[in-house]
Amino acid sequence: MSAEVQNPQTAMSILPSYVQGAWWTPENPERVVEVTDASTGALVARVSTDGLDTEAAINYARTVGQAALGELTIHERALKLKELAQYLTEHKDALYDLSFATGSTQRDHYIDVDGGIGTLFTFSSKGRRELPNSNVVIDGSTEVLSKDGSFIGEHIYRRMTGVAVEINAFNFPVWGMLEKFAPAFVAGMPSIVKPATPTGYVTEACVRLMVDSGIVPEGSIQLISGSARDLLDHLDYRDHVAFTGSAATAESLRKHPNVVTGGVKFTAETDSLNAAILGPDATTETPEFDAFVKAIFTEITAKAGQKCTAIRRVIVPQAMVEDVVSAVATRVTEKVVIGDPRTEGVTMGGLASKEQQSEVRKAVQRLIDAGGSVRLGGPDASVGSADAEAGAFFPVTILSFEEADTPEVHFVEAFGPVTSVIGYSSIEDAIRLAALGGGSLVATVCTNDGAAAAEFAAGIGAHHGRVHFLNRQTARTSTGHGSPMPHLIHGGPGRAGGGEELGGVRGIKHYMQRTAIQGSPDMLTAITGVWHSGAAAQTVTRASVDAGTGEHPFRKSLETLQIGDQFASELREVKLEDILKFAEETGDKFYAHTDEEAAMANPFFPRRVAHGYLLVSWAAGLFVDAAPGPVLANYGLENLRFITPVTYDDSIRVTLTAKKITPRVTDEYGEVAWDCVIHNQNDELVASYDVLTLVAKVWPMPTIAEDAAKAELQA
Amino acid sequence: MSAEVQNPQTAMSILPSYVQGAWWTPENPERVVEVTDASTGALVARVSTDGLDTEAAINYARTVGQAALGELTIHERALKLKELAQYLTEHKDALYDLSFATGSTQRDHYIDVDGGIGTLFTFSSKGRRELPNSNVVIDGSTEVLSKDGSFIGEHIYRRMTGVAVEINAFNFPVWGMLEKFAPAFVAGMPSIVKPATPTGYVTEACVRLMVDSGIVPEGSIQLISGSARDLLDHLDYRDHVAFTGSAATAESLRKHPNVVTGGVKFTAETDSLNAAILGPDATTETPEFDAFVKAIFTEITAKAGQKCTAIRRVIVPQAMVEDVVSAVATRVTEKVVIGDPRTEGVTMGGLASKEQQSEVRKAVQRLIDAGGSVRLGGPDASVGSADAEAGAFFPVTILSFEEADTPEVHFVEAFGPVTSVIGYSSIEDAIRLAALGGGSLVATVCTNDGAAAAEFAAGIGAHHGRVHFLNRQTARTSTGHGSPMPHLIHGGPGRAGGGEELGGVRGIKHYMQRTAIQGSPDMLTAITGVWHSGAAAQTVTRASVDAGTGEHPFRKSLETLQIGDQFASELREVKLEDILKFAEETGDKFYAHTDEEAAMANPFFPRRVAHGYLLVSWAAGLFVDAAPGPVLANYGLENLRFITPVTYDDSIRVTLTAKKITPRVTDEYGEVAWDCVIHNQNDELVASYDVLTLVAKVWPMPTIAEDAAKAELQA
Repeated sequence: MSAEVQNPQTAMSILPSYVQGAWWTPENPERVVEVTDASTGALVARVSTDGLDTEAAINYARTVGQAALGELTIHERALKLKELAQYLTEHKDALYDLSFATGSTQRDHYIDVDGGIGTLFTFSSKGRRELPNSNVVIDGSTEVLSKDGSFIGEHIYRRMTGVAVEINAFNFPVWGMLEKFAPAFVAGMPSIVKPATPTGYVTEACVRLMVDSGIVPEGSIQLISGSARDLLDHLDYRDHVAFTGSAATAESLRKHPNVVTGGVKFTAETDSLNAAILGPDATTETPEFDAFVKAIFTEITAKAGQKCTAIRRVIVPQAMVEDVVSAVATRVTEKVVIGDPRTEGVTMGGLASKEQQSEVRKAVQRLIDAGGSVRLGGPDASVGSADAEAGAFFPVTILSFEEADTPEVHFVEAFGPVTSVIGYSSIEDAIRLAALGGGSLVATVCTNDGAAAAEFAAGIGAHHGRVHFLNRQTARTSTGHGSPMPHLIHGGPGRAGGGEELGGVRGIKHYMQRTAIQGSPDMLTAITGVWHSGAAAQTVTRASVDAGTGEHPFRKSLETLQIGDQFASELREVKLEDILKFAEETGDKFYAHTDEEAAMANPFFPRRVAHGYLLVSWAAGLFVDAAPGPVLANYGLENLRFITPVTYDDSIRVTLTAKKITPRVTDEYGEVAWDCVIHNQNDELVASYDVLTLVAKVWPMPTIAEDAAKAELQA
Repeated sequence: MSAEVQNPQTAMSILPSYVQGAWWTPENPERVVEVTDASTGALVARVSTDGLDTEAAINYARTVGQAALGELTIHERALKLKELAQYLTEHKDALYDLSFATGSTQRDHYIDVDGGIGTLFTFSSKGRRELPNSNVVIDGSTEVLSKDGSFIGEHIYRRMTGVAVEINAFNFPVWGMLEKFAPAFVAGMPSIVKPATPTGYVTEACVRLMVDSGIVPEGSIQLISGSARDLLDHLDYRDHVAFTGSAATAESLRKHPNVVTGGVKFTAETDSLNAAILGPDATTETPEFDAFVKAIFTEITAKAGQKCTAIRRVIVPQAMVEDVVSAVATRVTEKVVIGDPRTEGVTMGGLASKEQQSEVRKAVQRLIDAGGSVRLGGPDASVGSADAEAGAFFPVTILSFEEADTPEVHFVEAFGPVTSVIGYSSIEDAIRLAALGGGSLVATVCTNDGAAAAEFAAGIGAHHGRVHFLNRQTARTSTGHGSPMPHLIHGGPGRAGGGEELGGVRGIKHYMQRTAIQGSPDMLTAITGVWHSGAAAQTVTRASVDAGTGEHPFRKSLETLQIGDQFASELREVKLEDILKFAEETGDKFYAHTDEEAAMANPFFPRRVAHGYLLVSWAAGLFVDAAPGPVLANYGLENLRFITPVTYDDSIRVTLTAKKITPRVTDEYGEVAWDCVIHNQNDELVASYDVLTLVAKVWPMPTIAEDAAKAELQA
């Protein structure tokens, strides 16, 4: 165990909280919870928050945390997540060591610890690639609200101004915290983390690493190790509560006056009865059948089935019930060795605690009483060589039901290595059965038939936060039914809690307020830092550049370039021979450019017209400043629209304006998006688009390795 | 009054509801509410829902309504909204006539009736322009989740599978209904409309027009004219409740078990204490001062101040309090004539009812008791020549407060022609005061100073659903502080209810479930109807086309074109002379194309490289089929990225694949987006982009008027 992680097992003092920038333990706690090892029953931690001043912690986050995070841009915070992920990677063995006590196997640690760190990496990358390097995120297009364009509107996101309270479940003490912390941090909201008591010592170790790293700004994370009953009493509409756990706790939180009338933004992810559906085409000899059986096996046994995404309902064609039961049972019998995960050869640990064990046993009994046949395991079955006395072990249990509609199948959750198998008569019936779950986090549909997949998607999509389609093409490459990916949303309607987390930048935006802003182009430019069409510009022309009275924007590095720096070209006439020559040289002899009669017959063209590609190529010729300078490369183009056709003997001119400037936090250059509009000799709009370039921060620029640059473009 | 609108004033039977496809009134109602004219006190309507079977109405929506709407695509439903808007426009006089009884002036009718119809037009247009012509909306980019690209993920929206319950306030009986109905309808959710009893007879008339029009499919709208106390008892996570009204009612609904644990999607818009802030620069001689005074005047007097967006708090520099009070008071005195809005010369009607009048009087008294000085009007002031006995009239009332922090100013809402003026000491102080409202729908900031606007936006943005920046540039063209635009979101955090409506397609998506889908490119193609990179394609080459064994995709009209139809070109070599000639002819002599030494010094280029525009122009030459055919025009290009530079003696080839096909519901053609990728001779990715074209539905195509075509491109 590394020095950074204090081990509560040896110290056996109260597990510390981290509030107001310091580690804290109660002095004379009255209420102390003792946490034991899932496999051995040994005391692991003593937990109490008696006397902890939650209100002070909240105020600290709102003041110190908000201020410290507000000094950084989205990209700067995102970069810190990467550094944090690297630091945690270096120290992750300490978290593995500690996590064995929760009953987790090394494979489970990968899900929790490495999964959590991976989430940090993804949010770091997405924050920097998909959001601006500022603190204002523009959402969607500009809406022109007056005929003359003087009054426009658009939407922006800004971080919420309070604290992000993150209440987690016991099953993922590291991932569960980091998947909430990462998006809140990039958004700029300080976090108060409240892990579940049974595994909070692992979260404490991780938070300690985060604090010791010195990477996260003061006030951006606080930890409450234990209960925090009055937490919601001090929150209001500026604050965000993300809860993962039981539906019952979610209910009590959602009824809190500060949620009901105070406007606290509350989101919940509760366990659901996730389904895996075998398509009608997936008979035993198909690769889909094997993939399906493996998926069920993985989901029942990983974390001993203590996953909110685990497969609780296996819905298969009526005739396939026996085949599926038997194939899964065989695989379990061959592969599962229950026991202390520190023991060589053990493949599945125990449940988190004796309490959990008792809960699962009760739920299984309830399923049996409702008509379930035990096909493997069961409440009283053997756990092999595991120490059943000391540990909270539970055998892998497969039930099958004659009656697919049995209500208990669809609402009684045994939060352990337990699943129920039922049969369906048609795709429609399978869709109906899946919906009986009342809203789920995820479903797997295993089929190689695209039409069936489409039918399932249409039928079950709106009941699920995620639907995973498994077939022979993805059997080896799928990230799995049970793994929420940071790129995709996690959550689901109804029983699943109605919340939504992750989903890349979607997750970040959940910690921000979307606001419509209306005003003149100048005002919206001032507010967003992005130039808006119609706003004031600093214009130079070829003549003023040649005369030395104006500086071409391409000659400015990011040190001096400003949004609104503009180059307005002279007119250039397009002759018929130019169009024909372009057609000849590019090979683009589309009739609209080459066949007068056919062009005239086309409803959109008066006669032969210039190629759109000719126009944008000439426009570049009109605006470019050719000499070596800070503009390094044109890496792309966005939103090109051709409006008024250009025919021969028309002329075009182009206006290029620095629209958005995004300096990279890690590089010697940044992105500049240029607003580009082409007009004809009658000042009609011919085309509009954004030109995307890389521009040096200073000029001349320090040398960049060519490999790095190449990797950049290909990333 | 037109024949379509039954007039409850003459019939005086119970105001009908429209449920399960038929008009319904209770047979022997026990509880009947009598609604009177706001100006005359005459009986206008009798309201009762005794015996109405809400559960049957909900089930009808979920079955008949969902089925009927599901037979249409998003574009088809959006087009129906336009037809409906046209129909209501033809019949709007009937709604005006009836609306006078609510106390509304003709100017108020424009806000309610025309505003509602305008919302239908906007949603019709946005639904067709910004969403696909199908029932699956893709959200964001594809995420590649496995190294080999065989496992990918993305997000889709599909309509929720239940009913949209729309509970409205009394102040906008038409707009309030239509702004909720429109997005739900485009999404494909059937609506149950429950207007407020005091003005429900106007809503009834509007729904009657909608039903009589025959435009909306059966089951897509139902109306409950009166109370519906058990409505939420029958809802679950498939359903959506959008509520506008008091915070107290919102609270009771939000506490309903079906919201707390049942997962009903609940959104509220409640009144808030919206602020208007005068910037430090806006002294009396500035155009901003005049614009500010006019804005306040409008917001106090329109609908007699009964607008959830009305300005309740006027926050101005300390030294400006008297100037503002006096300027607004002068304008009110000059312009306001209170009375029956049917009377010539009346500019402001009464409140909706005597109950409302009593509520407003109490609130004003509470503000006075808290320290407010009455500067105009007041609870006992004259209402001029209006019939104070018969009508619910209230004088325009301006209060000022010495103490800007007086809590009542920031939470006591007088829902009438009433506003409070307070002074601030600095921008920071003004921001702090605005936030005391605890979250608002909208604020106006009146300043001509961009830096001040940016500071205000940063400070108050996250506390508001909308911020309106008013200055000399927008004084004449602004759509106003109090007018929610269908393009922009309406709603706000905290006191404002925490909801979000409208916002163009954002509003439509609120009636849909976002679901992550994962699988192979083939599966995601099958599910979304949009071709995904890596999915199977039907490939032809120049050779196969020339040999007559393959048909070029450009030869296919929308009748025969399929997603996945693909053309793969041969290689074409780029010589140095091609690059130099292109530079010469376009004028684009950027050093990377023309100066070997400078190009080599650039970190991104090995030596001189081809222009990006040369590559896309040549690519068009490689893929195009030149003869007249169903491909009518290239109207744009999206997401162009240059990845691997192409230097001389490299070769390029292009692969063009039909990706997304969007037939227009109103035209003889539709949009086709083509996935376009350029590779080099080493199969490295050179560039990727989408080419946007218009393609005829059938070929040869019926003649289109050139004007229409031109208008199309410019729209």
